[in-house]
Amino acid sequence: MSNISEFRADELHEECGVFGIYDLDGGDIASSVYYGLFALQHRGQESCGIAVSDTSGPKGRVQSVKGMGLVNEVFHPENLSQLKGDIGVGHVRYSTAGASCSENTQPLVLNYVKGTLALAHNGNLTNAPELRHELEYTGAIFQTTIDSEVIAYHVARERLNTRDVESAVKNAMLKIKGAYSLIVMSPRKLIGARDPFGFRPLVIGKRDNSYVLASETCALDAISAEFVRDVEPGEIVTISKDGIKSDKSLQIKKSAKCIFEYIYFARPDSYIDGVSVYNSRIMAGKILAQTHPCKADIVLGVPDSGNAAAMGFALESGIPYGMGFIKNSYVGRTFIKPKQSVRESAVKIKLNVLKEVVKGKRVVMVDDSIVRGTTSERIVRMLKNAGATEVHVRISSPPFLFPCYFGTDVPSSDQLIAHKMSIDEICKMLGATSLGYLDVNRLAELIEGDDGYCDACFTGNYPVEPPKEDIRGEYDQ
Amino acid sequence: MSNISEFRADELHEECGVFGIYDLDGGDIASSVYYGLFALQHRGQESCGIAVSDTSGPKGRVQSVKGMGLVNEVFHPENLSQLKGDIGVGHVRYSTAGASCSENTQPLVLNYVKGTLALAHNGNLTNAPELRHELEYTGAIFQTTIDSEVIAYHVARERLNTRDVESAVKNAMLKIKGAYSLIVMSPRKLIGARDPFGFRPLVIGKRDNSYVLASETCALDAISAEFVRDVEPGEIVTISKDGIKSDKSLQIKKSAKCIFEYIYFARPDSYIDGVSVYNSRIMAGKILAQTHPCKADIVLGVPDSGNAAAMGFALESGIPYGMGFIKNSYVGRTFIKPKQSVRESAVKIKLNVLKEVVKGKRVVMVDDSIVRGTTSERIVRMLKNAGATEVHVRISSPPFLFPCYFGTDVPSSDQLIAHKMSIDEICKMLGATSLGYLDVNRLAELIEGDDGYCDACFTGNYPVEPPKEDIRGEYDQ
Amino acid sequence: MSNISEFRADELHEECGVFGIYDLDGGDIASSVYYGLFALQHRGQESCGIAVSDTSGPKGRVQSVKGMGLVNEVFHPENLSQLKGDIGVGHVRYSTAGASCSENTQPLVLNYVKGTLALAHNGNLTNAPELRHELEYTGAIFQTTIDSEVIAYHVARERLNTRDVESAVKNAMLKIKGAYSLIVMSPRKLIGARDPFGFRPLVIGKRDNSYVLASETCALDAISAEFVRDVEPGEIVTISKDGIKSDKSLQIKKSAKCIFEYIYFARPDSYIDGVSVYNSRIMAGKILAQTHPCKADIVLGVPDSGNAAAMGFALESGIPYGMGFIKNSYVGRTFIKPKQSVRESAVKIKLNVLKEVVKGKRVVMVDDSIVRGTTSERIVRMLKNAGATEVHVRISSPPFLFPCYFGTDVPSSDQLIAHKMSIDEICKMLGATSLGYLDVNRLAELIEGDDGYCDACFTGNYPVEPPKEDIRGEYDQ
Amino acid sequence: MSNISEFRADELHEECGVFGIYDLDGGDIASSVYYGLFALQHRGQESCGIAVSDTSGPKGRVQSVKGMGLVNEVFHPENLSQLKGDIGVGHVRYSTAGASCSENTQPLVLNYVKGTLALAHNGNLTNAPELRHELEYTGAIFQTTIDSEVIAYHVARERLNTRDVESAVKNAMLKIKGAYSLIVMSPRKLIGARDPFGFRPLVIGKRDNSYVLASETCALDAISAEFVRDVEPGEIVTISKDGIKSDKSLQIKKSAKCIFEYIYFARPDSYIDGVSVYNSRIMAGKILAQTHPCKADIVLGVPDSGNAAAMGFALESGIPYGMGFIKNSYVGRTFIKPKQSVRESAVKIKLNVLKEVVKGKRVVMVDDSIVRGTTSERIVRMLKNAGATEVHVRISSPPFLFPCYFGTDVPSSDQLIAHKMSIDEICKMLGATSLGYLDVNRLAELIEGDDGYCDACFTGNYPVEPPKEDIRGEYDQ
Repeated sequence: MSNISEFRADELHEECGVFGIYDLDGGDIASSVYYGLFALQHRGQESCGIAVSDTSGPKGRVQSVKGMGLVNEVFHPENLSQLKGDIGVGHVRYSTAGASCSENTQPLVLNYVKGTLALAHNGNLTNAPELRHELEYTGAIFQTTIDSEVIAYHVARERLNTRDVESAVKNAMLKIKGAYSLIVMSPRKLIGARDPFGFRPLVIGKRDNSYVLASETCALDAISAEFVRDVEPGEIVTISKDGIKSDKSLQIKKSAKCIFEYIYFARPDSYIDGVSVYNSRIMAGKILAQTHPCKADIVLGVPDSGNAAAMGFALESGIPYGMGFIKNSYVGRTFIKPKQSVRESAVKIKLNVLKEVVKGKRVVMVDDSIVRGTTSERIVRMLKNAGATEVHVRISSPPFLFPCYFGTDVPSSDQLIAHKMSIDEICKMLGATSLGYLDVNRLAELIEGDDGYCDACFTGNYPVEPPKEDIRGEYDQ
Repeated sequence: MSNISEFRADELHEECGVFGIYDLDGGDIASSVYYGLFALQHRGQESCGIAVSDTSGPKGRVQSVKGMGLVNEVFHPENLSQLKGDIGVGHVRYSTAGASCSENTQPLVLNYVKGTLALAHNGNLTNAPELRHELEYTGAIFQTTIDSEVIAYHVARERLNTRDVESAVKNAMLKIKGAYSLIVMSPRKLIGARDPFGFRPLVIGKRDNSYVLASETCALDAISAEFVRDVEPGEIVTISKDGIKSDKSLQIKKSAKCIFEYIYFARPDSYIDGVSVYNSRIMAGKILAQTHPCKADIVLGVPDSGNAAAMGFALESGIPYGMGFIKNSYVGRTFIKPKQSVRESAVKIKLNVLKEVVKGKRVVMVDDSIVRGTTSERIVRMLKNAGATEVHVRISSPPFLFPCYFGTDVPSSDQLIAHKMSIDEICKMLGATSLGYLDVNRLAELIEGDDGYCDACFTGNYPVEPPKEDIRGEYDQ
Repeated sequence: MSNISEFRADELHEECGVFGIYDLDGGDIASSVYYGLFALQHRGQESCGIAVSDTSGPKGRVQSVKGMGLVNEVFHPENLSQLKGDIGVGHVRYSTAGASCSENTQPLVLNYVKGTLALAHNGNLTNAPELRHELEYTGAIFQTTIDSEVIAYHVARERLNTRDVESAVKNAMLKIKGAYSLIVMSPRKLIGARDPFGFRPLVIGKRDNSYVLASETCALDAISAEFVRDVEPGEIVTISKDGIKSDKSLQIKKSAKCIFEYIYFARPDSYIDGVSVYNSRIMAGKILAQTHPCKADIVLGVPDSGNAAAMGFALESGIPYGMGFIKNSYVGRTFIKPKQSVRESAVKIKLNVLKEVVKGKRVVMVDDSIVRGTTSERIVRMLKNAGATEVHVRISSPPFLFPCYFGTDVPSSDQLIAHKMSIDEICKMLGATSLGYLDVNRLAELIEGDDGYCDACFTGNYPVEPPKEDIRGEYDQ
Repeated sequence: MSNISEFRADELHEECGVFGIYDLDGGDIASSVYYGLFALQHRGQESCGIAVSDTSGPKGRVQSVKGMGLVNEVFHPENLSQLKGDIGVGHVRYSTAGASCSENTQPLVLNYVKGTLALAHNGNLTNAPELRHELEYTGAIFQTTIDSEVIAYHVARERLNTRDVESAVKNAMLKIKGAYSLIVMSPRKLIGARDPFGFRPLVIGKRDNSYVLASETCALDAISAEFVRDVEPGEIVTISKDGIKSDKSLQIKKSAKCIFEYIYFARPDSYIDGVSVYNSRIMAGKILAQTHPCKADIVLGVPDSGNAAAMGFALESGIPYGMGFIKNSYVGRTFIKPKQSVRESAVKIKLNVLKEVVKGKRVVMVDDSIVRGTTSERIVRMLKNAGATEVHVRISSPPFLFPCYFGTDVPSSDQLIAHKMSIDEICKMLGATSLGYLDVNRLAELIEGDDGYCDACFTGNYPVEPPKEDIRGEYDQ
């Protein structure tokens, strides 16, 4: 949660958030989708969209509004009020530099043999290029560079030979590989599906007679829906006027949930697969205090994502937790960056140190990760300028060593500082007194001992064969 | 030419204008497309777009900018300067109430088996619904409601079995029926095609070492290109680095050029299939003076499309031509319409009568057509209020009796006043002293005796079988 | 009328248009002001505004909406509907390069000792700098660079010692010098005033129980008001719930109406001081035909302002009038100008020649004026390229030799081509076959023999002492 | 600092923030003002503006950009780059419902007898109505409803009889009463002044050879300027090419600094008059723990302004501090409010409770103030729904009983819940287990024992005679 994604030039990004709702009582759901997307905005700030279907209308009339920008910017009372319907699907998308264009906004809305479909997905297919080529060799045309279009084609083709749309989704899932949490809206059904490894989260909620699907439970809270359960890895849930049904026939033994959802991406007030994100961060902080103890006067979290781990570090170490930074949440995506100079920096404008808390103190500074190291270096320097006598940097994740192909933008190895420097060298570069990362062997403790997680960005152990080459962004033009 | 399309609630609309250019010397052509679209703006004011290909770039990199609104509104120096390339295609689209949405902007840009294609077309396919259904039954998905997407699918599928893209276009043309003038841009080629009946115009121009395709010659003038010749009905021209080549193997005996292009849609400074639009209007006015003479003091054209015919009437009748109306060109599409009242009307705000010219005079008022009659009635009243003693209405086209399925919006018969009333009744409703329409048997004289024109909206003689039901707008949502 | 102001880089501009209305029956008048401003848009396209007073509200509540841009751009249903009231005043302002800023929009709305005032004016004070200095020496502050603020101060100060606001306006008029047509709205009165020389027009209209003030009669037509009479030079009319009253005590013997209002600025469908603008242009054309006859085949007016004079030339000479140009009214203020090149020019994009009319012909081309000559030169060239064998240029005004200080932007002499070249030299520069200007001694004939006009821009005979230095624009920052 | 001002419908608002800088080395300062305003954005989100003077330009050319919206929305690279100069003044303004209009944006830029002035102020004059009337009786006109205009008039009038602009400011200060921190920019000077009671803060900073004035020290940090000292109550500092000079001749014995700046308005990383805002909040929390102790498991601050006091409460009580809320910083001013319903509320969308932290716990919830009580009631309910067994509400200020006339919008008594209910009744209304306010007698401890503060909103002891009637907003139209 928070503007943290705007706070660091070298931060990581989640690629999407999805939300769906079906009010079996026929209520109007557009504003619920709108509020749900607000709660998922941290998962993507580039573009967003809502599509709704009115099951009482002719043939399930589907209407959509999509646009570049934040939920707050794309929707206004006029266009929101035009979205009349009892089923809805929404999407927030993350902003990369290249692929940011209006064609790529989601949900993808399309006509096919059985009428209209809307698709919203979170994740990355690892075999999308192959599938695109295959489809093209049968005459397909692509108007976007998003994986949703590949999925949509497969659903449409499978639909020719299946009895219902959920079966078409299932058959499509046999073809697509990689990470995806998917919401599909047909004129009269809302379908949620999660890839067999369960890389990305997806939850089921309920409010009165409405069923809800969402990337995170915080979106359920926002609309006062109750959490029912997670969609399981490999599961397909179908909500129709007959209620909810589940198909788990695609499930496999081993899951590979993204551990970084807990460490950084998800909001701390969310629960993923039964585990509190907040608790997992507290635990990360505790482990750090056990494995990388130090003598210090105060523990500070780099806002906002470092706060919970800092709290855990404080609890375990007995060093008091403090509030050491003030973040300026008015500095949005479009602010004019300062020209590179020592004294004015984007970091400084977005973050200030509370001198009163820091001066004369030995500080433990807890952050969630280091990508390129430039931001961390500036923050260490700010702490020292504010009078900190020592700065012990603790990172609530292991060092990034490998790129991610499953829906985040952990970049290629040559851009990862931990790939190029030893920990001592990084410590020196940051100007830190000491530096400690989370032990990769203790990651399971973050999620209550479950070992069904993906740690490929730390270990290179990819649960699904990665693409031969890094194709991320190739289709962007 | 002009804002006339905004001037009358009950006027007719052309559905599109297309423009393409290929600079064989590798020059930058985006601004030429931009200026060319300005000259075609009268053919469509809803949305517009430009796509360019840079043949010197990797794999023919294609970039596009599209948006709702006028050329003036969609393009600005920033986005225009990003369109770097030596081949370009542009489009202006007409604004209907329902289907006005950003998905439907053109050119359609897509990836297919052989890379990237951009398509811009003007016209209406009469078998689009059947083709859509057929494609859907092979797994196609549709993201827009425009015919270009249907054409694109056919080109993409044919391309699997053809040696080059122009052959794929040709094969696609064997499937699609109806009216179309089409520009297709592949990464290294620019292709223009016109349906075998030649409903909509398409011309070839040349400037230095650049080839140009455009809906009308006025767009050639705007960019100082010379007119080379018309693309012939059924012809496909292909421009590549090897120059221009032509394929006329799809030509048929009989053409069916839209006669209403001459009467109303095209700009009077354009030439279509060798005939000056201006001259054809002068001729329409002359015929009216021959067939519906009257005693009067002055001849006035309803601006802007009635002016040339009025001039022709004056020349033939000897009655002086006068400037009787002032049109307010500042009243754009978005002005706030007055609530219906006798004294304030949209017509009045957009048009004023020059009392000095009209008072005490017997007036011949020449207009291009009557659809529902409401605007004509208001203009007659304004003339009388300004002191005209008689108002002889002369219409430079025959009465509309049948809908058009070939790229204009002549509506269904029940909305056409001539279908419901006799000419005498219409005259009375207008409050006119007399009323005369152009004789349908003399239409050929407008285009120098050529009889290869379509007059289906006057006669019901459709050159191509019309759709079983009026499907125009069905796919709009 | 028309976009002509956008058509030529070297054209002249009127500086403002004003409109006021008071509905004694308490009707809502905002939309009437809105439509009235549309009819006056040719007098200014930089910014516009409307202020309304609700006499039934507390203390005459005044509300206003102002903004940069056209009437069409500034007003939309939301903000227009917020302007509730029975008295209203509106303004359109001309766009200069420098002084274009939101502070300078009119009407100026202010609080002073007696409540609220709104002022809209058209013209230029010649002693504004002196008055500003005087006011500043008594502690005044200025937040704009418009003369309205100077006038407002004087009204406010005079109001301290007068019984009513119209007396304060009158006393202020004793101090201010130069050209002004002024509309002042107090919470319960609408006042119109015209400087003693009557440089700028101002008319009175009536519609039911509403009184209307406007720069031109065409604005009365737009709202279906009847023309009552002109406000006379030096007259003050005051409209209150007691009806209309007049004070002519400031009148002087000699008026100095701007002759260029007839030749160019005003819409041809307007009447100024009893004279039809259209007729005065017809007359200008006739005089040109008498004084500068030539042998030719056709007479063409440069649209739109040259058309009526061309018609007059045709009538007098017997040479047929023709329609030789097509103007592209979609090219607005913000279009991207072509880089200077021979083949693409702003003129060409905005104007095309009808080859069919021109080729092989000896052409008389009638335009209203020549400022720097660049546009005229391009048009002559276009005519020749279209096949004209001779181009006889006829200008319906005398040569500009002196700047104007009375509300137009006829520039300083060093920018006027006629100041620097002989007529023969200009003719050669234009590439014209012959060139003839209107004889300055025959100007009175344009306005039915009245000699109460200002021709200072042609003769240097300033009716009011001009400022010592050309201060126009000085206050712009 | 945070979106807290957007977080509560019934919150309080600061009315402005001011910033000024003069680079004696002639550097370009617009971007420094821009970044400084970001740091002050929490003091006002309605509108903002920057004016700059170029001392090397002709006569000290002043340019300004102002607009409605956040710093992020009003400024973009184009308009910021046009602000060239070495002296600058900036302003952020708070959004009230009524007076929100572009005329009222600051800095006010004006011409007067000695050239140009720009004024930015924070505060409220208590005698503005009287001064306006007085000025109007000497012929003044007012174009805004902001106090800056009243101040500007006085400076302009005094300037007629003073040697320099700082003396004029001083003389003006003898006339104006109430709260103001003022920055005045003349073409070659930057002047800061604070009212004799020092209600609103104003500090001096330095960076290289640049002097800086700002509402808070956090703005100095943002541009890497060093804190020099506070402008003292009643002091005038003048920065010119000769450096900085001070005039303290208007100082009085007793100051009346707004205590609520410490409790809520200012950013915790700022220092006001030598006292850390953060420390004063820690102290408020400690006093609450002493005076209103309770048995509980965790202390939570309502973000963001309650966090520091919660930390103080935790420190003093020994009850652990916890992170109990997640604030959604993406929910901006323009989000579409939910229709009133129990389950969806604006509070819920902006704030979520961390169930994991709260469930089964006895909670101390620390907030800064209660105005109407509606937001607090909702937050208490959210805590209980999340499983809190007890909710002890602690407010780090005394109860609001009286309106504020000195630059904040503490409303009239009839809207203050503490004016209408006893503390027990409020506790019951909130659904809280217990409720404790800060003891009004211990306020001095927040600022290190200094008793020179204003507590009128708690006690009714107004340091300056309040206006006869509550005139706040009267001039808004």
